Amino acid sequence: MCSSVKQNVPIYSASQNSINRWGLKNKTIAEKAAFIKNYSNFPYICTLQMFTMEKRTVKDILEGYKKVLHHDITVQGWVRAFRSNRFIALNDGSTINNLQIVVDFENFDEAIIKQINTASSLKITGEVVESQGAGQTVEILAKKIVILGDNFSEELQKTILQPKKHSLEKLREEAHLRFRTNLFGAIFRVRSAVSFAIHEFFNKNQFFYIHTPIITGADAEGAGEMFGVTNFDLNNIPRDENGDIDFEQDFFARKTSLTVSGQLEAETAAMGLGRVYTFGPTFRAENSNTTRHLAEFWMVEPEVAFNNLEDNIDLAENFLKYVIKYVLENCKDDLEFLDKRFAEEQKQKPEKERAKEGLIEKLEKVAEKRFKRVSYTEAIEILMNSKENKKGKFQFPVEHWGTDLQSEHERFLVEKHFESPVVLFDYPKEIKAFYMRLNEDGKTVAAMDVLFPGIGEIIGGSQREERIDVLKQKMKEMHVDEDELWWYIDTRKFGSVPHAGFGLGLERLVLFVTGMTNIRDVIPFPRTPKSAEF
Amino acid sequence: MCSSVKQNVPIYSASQNSINRWGLKNKTIAEKAAFIKNYSNFPYICTLQMFTMEKRTVKDILEGYKKVLHHDITVQGWVRAFRSNRFIALNDGSTINNLQIVVDFENFDEAIIKQINTASSLKITGEVVESQGAGQTVEILAKKIVILGDNFSEELQKTILQPKKHSLEKLREEAHLRFRTNLFGAIFRVRSAVSFAIHEFFNKNQFFYIHTPIITGADAEGAGEMFGVTNFDLNNIPRDENGDIDFEQDFFARKTSLTVSGQLEAETAAMGLGRVYTFGPTFRAENSNTTRHLAEFWMVEPEVAFNNLEDNIDLAENFLKYVIKYVLENCKDDLEFLDKRFAEEQKQKPEKERAKEGLIEKLEKVAEKRFKRVSYTEAIEILMNSKENKKGKFQFPVEHWGTDLQSEHERFLVEKHFESPVVLFDYPKEIKAFYMRLNEDGKTVAAMDVLFPGIGEIIGGSQREERIDVLKQKMKEMHVDEDELWWYIDTRKFGSVPHAGFGLGLERLVLFVTGMTNIRDVIPFPRTPKSAEF
Repeated sequence: MCSSVKQNVPIYSASQNSINRWGLKNKTIAEKAAFIKNYSNFPYICTLQMFTMEKRTVKDILEGYKKVLHHDITVQGWVRAFRSNRFIALNDGSTINNLQIVVDFENFDEAIIKQINTASSLKITGEVVESQGAGQTVEILAKKIVILGDNFSEELQKTILQPKKHSLEKLREEAHLRFRTNLFGAIFRVRSAVSFAIHEFFNKNQFFYIHTPIITGADAEGAGEMFGVTNFDLNNIPRDENGDIDFEQDFFARKTSLTVSGQLEAETAAMGLGRVYTFGPTFRAENSNTTRHLAEFWMVEPEVAFNNLEDNIDLAENFLKYVIKYVLENCKDDLEFLDKRFAEEQKQKPEKERAKEGLIEKLEKVAEKRFKRVSYTEAIEILMNSKENKKGKFQFPVEHWGTDLQSEHERFLVEKHFESPVVLFDYPKEIKAFYMRLNEDGKTVAAMDVLFPGIGEIIGGSQREERIDVLKQKMKEMHVDEDELWWYIDTRKFGSVPHAGFGLGLERLVLFVTGMTNIRDVIPFPRTPKSAEF
Repeated sequence: MCSSVKQNVPIYSASQNSINRWGLKNKTIAEKAAFIKNYSNFPYICTLQMFTMEKRTVKDILEGYKKVLHHDITVQGWVRAFRSNRFIALNDGSTINNLQIVVDFENFDEAIIKQINTASSLKITGEVVESQGAGQTVEILAKKIVILGDNFSEELQKTILQPKKHSLEKLREEAHLRFRTNLFGAIFRVRSAVSFAIHEFFNKNQFFYIHTPIITGADAEGAGEMFGVTNFDLNNIPRDENGDIDFEQDFFARKTSLTVSGQLEAETAAMGLGRVYTFGPTFRAENSNTTRHLAEFWMVEPEVAFNNLEDNIDLAENFLKYVIKYVLENCKDDLEFLDKRFAEEQKQKPEKERAKEGLIEKLEKVAEKRFKRVSYTEAIEILMNSKENKKGKFQFPVEHWGTDLQSEHERFLVEKHFESPVVLFDYPKEIKAFYMRLNEDGKTVAAMDVLFPGIGEIIGGSQREERIDVLKQKMKEMHVDEDELWWYIDTRKFGSVPHAGFGLGLERLVLFVTGMTNIRDVIPFPRTPKSAEF
């Protein structure tokens, strides 16, 4: 009768599905057992054991152990530590917390015990009991231990898996292994939560997710230098009769590059779908070896028909707060770990440079507080009249209206003057892109930047120029090729509407939320000048 | 007191936030008005009008009109049709349904009425009333009409916005405008829902979303030809002393390409985080001009530590069903439109070629039915013994075990033999990739393909080879460079575990769900040989 097990029927799924189907999901094992008794003729439910064979993560067990207390369960993971030949700290990546496994070593083959080292992979079956020790509420009394795979512990000593403190630089060199550290486990779980929150926010607000092209024939936006994409054999590039490179013969029959932004395409989508957003990789071929720049990074770009600049600022503020609140609610354990790390790091700094707030405290404040909204013109006045400026403390003194703001100015406004996230708006048209809407004054555009403490610009956006004559004039002035952007201009020809949007660099937001300071530590495999390992 | 309006305070957000904060979201306007009366000293709530200024989409109004019945509201959108100088069908992209606006043309300036044409963009304020006419439950009696932007109606006659039937080819040439048609509005709303459902499924199941690199230095997977990425000036490529291209001088100091899959990197993440998935663009530089191939497409790749082949099949089946159910529940209107279109299209076909089921019927069945699970060996037997094979009806006759299955064979199994989605597993090792786990028999690997009616392979995956010696042997046999993949091999050195994963081509799934037949019609801006417009 219980032949389904032998006949290769997928127990895991069958039991999972069954559990859901019969409303057993939140029942205790005893209740499930009673249920089974009455349904013993059902092909997929044969024994109580099948229910206990559900695949459980460490997180499931730590958070829901009461359901399986005093029952045998199976759990799999990697050894983070093995103390006194008796206590295994097991981690499976589902949470930063480890599950304590108690091994009565006399009951096990010595050969097995010897194989339990840092990073060993184990499958353990045992009884769930309330823990007597401090530091955990629950532990597993191991009855069966299976070593799942190889563990070259000698070679391991040369890697970052060796249990001692490693520099972030060293961890970066072994980016393929750093997922297995507490720190990077926390960072990438938070990055995932941030990404999900972004999708959820937009989905709840009737936005449609669109995929704008990565390979593009347009290079008109001028947001930065672009990487070339080609299928040419570089040793044998075809030439036309004039001796020029014959891009007609390349894969796309034209010169192509990697996108720097999906905005222009997103605008065309917003003209049909109303509210859209992109979330995808973008690229800059800029030789900036800083802690804030990547050659490949992920960007989120909402674009909304019928929105003006204020709507756009509201959207940006609501959006950021939603994501931060989501992480505060859903990543408590990881944030606590990052908060402690952040505090430790601050202690190493001279007192003057220390952050005023803890990481979680900072996030909670930003999630609640209304962002300051300040025009560029006001900001310039504040900066020009500041002590810092007068005493020559800025590397770039602020001398007149029209000057572009530097990072030091943004940080002064956010961290010293307002002590709050700041939204700057209405910038001089000369320092902003061609597609931003010209204001009535004829000299500013309806641009906005959201500035965050410690990060600087986290969002940049604008209301877009919807008036075709003004747009064309701007393109002419700024040497943007009209012919190449014929399709962009088209959107201003047929039922043009006011609209607005912005761009958020995902990694900057993850830096802010995790308290990390180098952008290479918040993306799994960073791409930077001279580096594309893995 | 109501000065906040003049002081540039964002009314939209203030009122939205207020509405939520005071639990007024689902209250009628009358109830809100009563609330305001008691709180007239609150800075952001000044007048009833502020509540009615909420930005409402057409979807909001059609679905929740009872809350605003007999009140004046404002709505913005594009004209889809204007009948008898009196009835405007207004669409804003939020839904496939139009909102009917009733215009009493005698009350409006003739100049305004003249500007109301197909594709005009309007802002309309008017009273919400129950509709007397057939076809809609609610309509707006226009009191104020504002023309929002330009509409070059003469030029429009040359575009796909001209209200008549256009071929899909023509619509593709104007991909920037096709978002504004009923068909492509529906397709891209469904694509967005599919994408969100994917994220939601994985998030609910404790998976972490990771971003694997787009630009890669590895080209070992051999899944297909890769596009080169370079920052070289192609007119002046640096050479080393041997006259070879000096990639050391390129941006990343090596030869780089666009990724064909994030799997190998995802595996390293799964070894730390347990359950992960990627969702990003992938690329093939293959000169295939078919209805099923794109040079740039989006792929979803889960990778799960501790999963075996059966777990992997379960995951794939549960995943596909979840996404299809999500769309059935959340895209009813769009699916009904697509269902009708699909039925129309079937009518044009000779009876023999017509689909047996309607689109929605097909989706409902797939969402409920258990997928057939069949080994490659069984499938070959079925195919060899089939009438079709014996009568020579296959273009590629099936003659022996070990042969690769062609699309015609897959379709025979799915559409004729089983009349069900089919999961094939345990393929001959020679026809599958190096990283797939060798079975006990020594001649098959733990691979799986999910085959869907009308689509063929929609998912391909496998349990991965976790045994380092077997993996290295396979790499040698299949000429995969060990040195280049040192980091991949590392994951088999330190606590190697059984694990499994698969890849889903997003566009294939969207084809299936929408009933479309050309892959270029389910991605906003398709990239194909000789084409990278926009």
